[in-house]
Amino acid sequence: MAAADRARLGVGMVGYSFMGAAHSHAWRTAPRFFDLPMRTEMTAVAGRNREKVTAAAERLGWESAETDWRRLLERDDIDLVDICTPGSTHAEIAIAALDAGKHVLCEKPLANSVAEAEQMVAAADRAARRGVHAMVGFTYRRVPAIQLARQLVVDGRIGEIRHVRAQYLQDWLSDPSTPLNWRLDKDKAGSGALGDIGAHVVDLTQFVTGELLTGVAGMLETFVSERPVATEFSGLSGSGGAETGPVTVDDAAVFFGRMSGGAMATYEATRYAAGRKNAIRIEINGSAGSLAFDFEDMNVLHFYDASESATTAGFRRIVVTEPEHRYIGAWWPAGHGLGYEHAFTHQVVDLVGALADGADPAPSFADGLDVQRVLDAVERSAAEQHRWIKLP
Amino acid sequence: MAAADRARLGVGMVGYSFMGAAHSHAWRTAPRFFDLPMRTEMTAVAGRNREKVTAAAERLGWESAETDWRRLLERDDIDLVDICTPGSTHAEIAIAALDAGKHVLCEKPLANSVAEAEQMVAAADRAARRGVHAMVGFTYRRVPAIQLARQLVVDGRIGEIRHVRAQYLQDWLSDPSTPLNWRLDKDKAGSGALGDIGAHVVDLTQFVTGELLTGVAGMLETFVSERPVATEFSGLSGSGGAETGPVTVDDAAVFFGRMSGGAMATYEATRYAAGRKNAIRIEINGSAGSLAFDFEDMNVLHFYDASESATTAGFRRIVVTEPEHRYIGAWWPAGHGLGYEHAFTHQVVDLVGALADGADPAPSFADGLDVQRVLDAVERSAAEQHRWIKLP
Amino acid sequence: MAAADRARLGVGMVGYSFMGAAHSHAWRTAPRFFDLPMRTEMTAVAGRNREKVTAAAERLGWESAETDWRRLLERDDIDLVDICTPGSTHAEIAIAALDAGKHVLCEKPLANSVAEAEQMVAAADRAARRGVHAMVGFTYRRVPAIQLARQLVVDGRIGEIRHVRAQYLQDWLSDPSTPLNWRLDKDKAGSGALGDIGAHVVDLTQFVTGELLTGVAGMLETFVSERPVATEFSGLSGSGGAETGPVTVDDAAVFFGRMSGGAMATYEATRYAAGRKNAIRIEINGSAGSLAFDFEDMNVLHFYDASESATTAGFRRIVVTEPEHRYIGAWWPAGHGLGYEHAFTHQVVDLVGALADGADPAPSFADGLDVQRVLDAVERSAAEQHRWIKLP
Amino acid sequence: MAAADRARLGVGMVGYSFMGAAHSHAWRTAPRFFDLPMRTEMTAVAGRNREKVTAAAERLGWESAETDWRRLLERDDIDLVDICTPGSTHAEIAIAALDAGKHVLCEKPLANSVAEAEQMVAAADRAARRGVHAMVGFTYRRVPAIQLARQLVVDGRIGEIRHVRAQYLQDWLSDPSTPLNWRLDKDKAGSGALGDIGAHVVDLTQFVTGELLTGVAGMLETFVSERPVATEFSGLSGSGGAETGPVTVDDAAVFFGRMSGGAMATYEATRYAAGRKNAIRIEINGSAGSLAFDFEDMNVLHFYDASESATTAGFRRIVVTEPEHRYIGAWWPAGHGLGYEHAFTHQVVDLVGALADGADPAPSFADGLDVQRVLDAVERSAAEQHRWIKLP
Repeated sequence: MAAADRARLGVGMVGYSFMGAAHSHAWRTAPRFFDLPMRTEMTAVAGRNREKVTAAAERLGWESAETDWRRLLERDDIDLVDICTPGSTHAEIAIAALDAGKHVLCEKPLANSVAEAEQMVAAADRAARRGVHAMVGFTYRRVPAIQLARQLVVDGRIGEIRHVRAQYLQDWLSDPSTPLNWRLDKDKAGSGALGDIGAHVVDLTQFVTGELLTGVAGMLETFVSERPVATEFSGLSGSGGAETGPVTVDDAAVFFGRMSGGAMATYEATRYAAGRKNAIRIEINGSAGSLAFDFEDMNVLHFYDASESATTAGFRRIVVTEPEHRYIGAWWPAGHGLGYEHAFTHQVVDLVGALADGADPAPSFADGLDVQRVLDAVERSAAEQHRWIKLP
Repeated sequence: MAAADRARLGVGMVGYSFMGAAHSHAWRTAPRFFDLPMRTEMTAVAGRNREKVTAAAERLGWESAETDWRRLLERDDIDLVDICTPGSTHAEIAIAALDAGKHVLCEKPLANSVAEAEQMVAAADRAARRGVHAMVGFTYRRVPAIQLARQLVVDGRIGEIRHVRAQYLQDWLSDPSTPLNWRLDKDKAGSGALGDIGAHVVDLTQFVTGELLTGVAGMLETFVSERPVATEFSGLSGSGGAETGPVTVDDAAVFFGRMSGGAMATYEATRYAAGRKNAIRIEINGSAGSLAFDFEDMNVLHFYDASESATTAGFRRIVVTEPEHRYIGAWWPAGHGLGYEHAFTHQVVDLVGALADGADPAPSFADGLDVQRVLDAVERSAAEQHRWIKLP
Repeated sequence: MAAADRARLGVGMVGYSFMGAAHSHAWRTAPRFFDLPMRTEMTAVAGRNREKVTAAAERLGWESAETDWRRLLERDDIDLVDICTPGSTHAEIAIAALDAGKHVLCEKPLANSVAEAEQMVAAADRAARRGVHAMVGFTYRRVPAIQLARQLVVDGRIGEIRHVRAQYLQDWLSDPSTPLNWRLDKDKAGSGALGDIGAHVVDLTQFVTGELLTGVAGMLETFVSERPVATEFSGLSGSGGAETGPVTVDDAAVFFGRMSGGAMATYEATRYAAGRKNAIRIEINGSAGSLAFDFEDMNVLHFYDASESATTAGFRRIVVTEPEHRYIGAWWPAGHGLGYEHAFTHQVVDLVGALADGADPAPSFADGLDVQRVLDAVERSAAEQHRWIKLP
Repeated sequence: MAAADRARLGVGMVGYSFMGAAHSHAWRTAPRFFDLPMRTEMTAVAGRNREKVTAAAERLGWESAETDWRRLLERDDIDLVDICTPGSTHAEIAIAALDAGKHVLCEKPLANSVAEAEQMVAAADRAARRGVHAMVGFTYRRVPAIQLARQLVVDGRIGEIRHVRAQYLQDWLSDPSTPLNWRLDKDKAGSGALGDIGAHVVDLTQFVTGELLTGVAGMLETFVSERPVATEFSGLSGSGGAETGPVTVDDAAVFFGRMSGGAMATYEATRYAAGRKNAIRIEINGSAGSLAFDFEDMNVLHFYDASESATTAGFRRIVVTEPEHRYIGAWWPAGHGLGYEHAFTHQVVDLVGALADGADPAPSFADGLDVQRVLDAVERSAAEQHRWIKLP
């Protein structure tokens, strides 16, 4: 599309650590590889510490820096607010931004509670009526192998789904001497492994199957309840001057549920699976075939077609790097694999595409609320003797 | 050991289909590769149909055939009864055999109910006081990679166990046109995937960890409730002359639980995982390391040692075919893998070794009862809204 | 087939160590699982040491023992001689046996020289005219996954073959302190890795492709030229009383060649590939598809069908344990993998089937000679500056 | 490093297709994630077509465009010339740039002939005496798993190297209807699979082992000698107006050689390995351990430590995404894998680091010449009956 024909999209980002770096890379990179229908500009980044946010703007490629996220809402040159802060701040920022007429991209989990998420959905609904759009950042949906998985389900290649098996396994807390950080603080993070990584596999399985969980029973555990306070650590609620502080979230979550189509589903999210670094594993078994994915080999999807002859049937290891696969045409030749951050670039591509079309981008805040309700139900089940909690 | 010094052990087997063939192979093969401390003899096989049992004796290598298993108990030349019949018959045969002073090897699951299993344990206890021994056939314990897994736990290489993840995935019922057989009949089989294959992963995880489940919550499902009646099919209770008949057991089971040491455990057993043929997958994560096993690659154990430097740490693919590995010295050079039936041969080796020592062989009937209680708790949980059931 | 209708086949085996144990297991096991068209009897085993051969007969299940293999040729109750001795003895025994009217199964490599192999082929030709048959024991052909590979080539699923990539990797000599044995003695073994394991991959690739090598260039190496003499070691030519002795064969062989259909082929055979235990790896790339096999996962064949859509094409991991796969119907349900020794049982099945039909069993001595010529050409190429050697 | 303290490095790039896009991404991205010791500027890109090069400058992020690469040499604001054109142009551009006092980064293969490469090395030597530096773009060296492989060799974890096994397998020419492009034209590309991808595995193995090939024997093949001319295709020498044109390079290369330390080495490079997309496979076996790498799973290195107990020894699957691994600290948390283009970013990091230090960057043009000599020797061997060619 000719540059002159493309509307400008000024972006303001809040937060600039892990997620902020990933989002910045995506905003920088998307227009270089994809023919975006809008002229994206990295207008401003916001953070509380002037020195740090200024350095971040320079390093990450933002044109200006603000020390209060509210300033982004006041600026006319900003059309979209990209929220990369901890979950406890999502609701306030997102609702204010939407009400100020800014599109919003909000990191997951949508919020730290169902109540907050519901308010965010209400704000998104209000905004949508005025042509202002909101999306939640379940980035892993944008991995090409996951897109292919979804496509195979849509095409009927899996058939009626009978089993969903999802695990998100990390090990960075396996060592009890790993110090506290904000992700272990319930006030900031809302929950632990459940909301941080369990949220991803709940969303991924609902996305790939096109079905929702209708009920769950679950169990949570905090294996290490006290951890060292890192000396440079600040802002942890209640850490005081102590040498150790409490872990106030779950270390691991285990639950099963029933999908709307009748499938049995099992989930596990943990930061204590020694040797598993970022193993997002999804398996789906249906009447016509099966799928298997592991993010530790992220460019590959395994697909079993049950209609093949028994003599030659087998899980196919599809290297999802062909021009025919979603997003790949913009990148490299076959076999030249993508990495973690490409999914963020794809997120920008899809978001800008939807905004240019005036369409609601997916996953919506309502999708984020669906996930939030599952997380909440798991927490309630765990607190109430693992009893079954129905989902609306 | 010189032949003359070895006591004779006359074996009588009941049943001669799938399990009977596997056990017969083991009785034939064990003395050829291992230096057994007793002279085993394949004295008689019992079955109801004279023609068939006679042919089976000839084909499988048994010296004589009986049409009533009770005859085995009367014969002086039989010291051990090997029970390879459906679960509904286990209790009667095993108790009678033990009371008649015969050692017993009983296929799993031990029984079709906890009550039966308790009576069998009582009989085994009575028998043990008279030097008569009983073992239940959780054969997969005898796979060398599983033995190594257990050894690594015992040696402290895994540390405090935090996660147990177990699946037994098959797909032979995935096609609704597969006809009925006795394994789908509750009266014969007791339960479906839960007792047939779920029992194995319950036992394997309790064996490898050395811990017991203390409670479970679960879910059962029968995906296909009516199936064709195969014309050659007979003996199915209630099948009458109909063209289809009801499936009266579960097709799949999903549950989670808590191990006695505090680990979170998840289980899945299904015959509907398209493309998975006999995938017994066990993963264990501990504070010092992790283990992973899949029976579809049965000669391999994956082991992660968390004490290794981060630079070179990684799951080791151990090909469990070294002379240092249990049972392997009797077989082939390194890398010459074993197959499914070797575990049955190892079972004979361990059983005969224990009998020669006058020791109680493991897994005992009490171990089988432990598994039975878990299966029963899962069934109750599934029937009662998936509520948590404590185990004694 | 009814027992009475089946002709008797009396077997006499020469040698009773590694290969003898594997062959004995096969003779014992084949009639138990397969419906053989002849009544095989394990009539006699021959070895030089009376005490040892008598014990071996007892342990391995042979009815009698002989201390001179020539006795087997004189006995009327022996119809087939099974040769499990080192390669230096093959020609003499096989030719004498064939000339005495006995069928012969001879372990690989067929002989230690092309000249010997040619004489053996001549003897086999003479014998065939009298209805006496000979087979060479390239057992790995009988692995079900290899049979499937061959079938896919025959069915045109691979198309015109362009690349053959074959490796046989072991590591049991990687440690220089491993002592000498007969396999390191040129007089006994003929060659080292080349003849012992390279022979297998030459035969396997010629079998699977249905093509012959037309020329080769190669390189041999002996990495460790002196090794300790094990105290219990005897019979090594020239070892005298020294503490170390010379390795007189190659430790590793590397060569490339051209198949008769034009494909480029690469080969490697070594006992120094640290960590590879028995990795027989075959890859074939054709215009229509590809195959990949590794004996370390022997129940699996990987197959790529180039006619599939680019979106879903991928190597299929076929678990070769379905009833539709060759030999499997006689064994266990799907997913219950076979082990190393099953291939020997299948060898007995195929051999007895051919004898009952009066057909020439494959692989023939002529097939063995083809392999021998390749090994010889590699040795000559290595000795003559790696020059290209044409094959007839 | 504070921005003001860093010297400016103006970069001019020649060519802007596949490699140009990858290099541009690297120049854009390196300063965002790494703390570079110089201020890199993307000053100009050169290409013959004004319209196309202007669009490329805009899309790829270059400040200006030139239609003659010689202009880059005249501009004072350009300190380094980055050559991303076909091999036939490398020598002229690189020599002129170095003689003009510009640092050079030149894509591989260094040149299309040994003579050209020698002239380039001479130019690099002249330049080095004036503080001007040259590097050749063997980018795969910068994959973190390859860096770890090299480190393990340096640390003695592999010991004396005995086997090198290298393959670069693609399949994009497997279909005879794939049209001609410049890579199939000897005048432009110099050679086919040999120089395009074989060059990479020659360099990688020489880099990882720290040894050079001392001799080779090889074989080349062109499986499909005529291919369709794509209508949009231009500039192919001799294609005229014909509908098909000749393939004038090799489709595949196979060779073996000897490393300077005595190891046996085998190589294969092909574009006809159906199903292999970009499979760069390197295996190394040494007296102390082994390594295995496959670019289709590029974030993983397999390492076997032969000093481990036989009971627990096995290839470790190291996920090379830990902060302790080279380059990783600048990217994401453990398990968040990198993709193909990250290696180009690392190349910029290493190049800029060397320039800031006034050090010669590696791989040098002399390293590129070493590779060129191997490619040349393989071609000669293939042309002369596969005879052994010694390397200097």
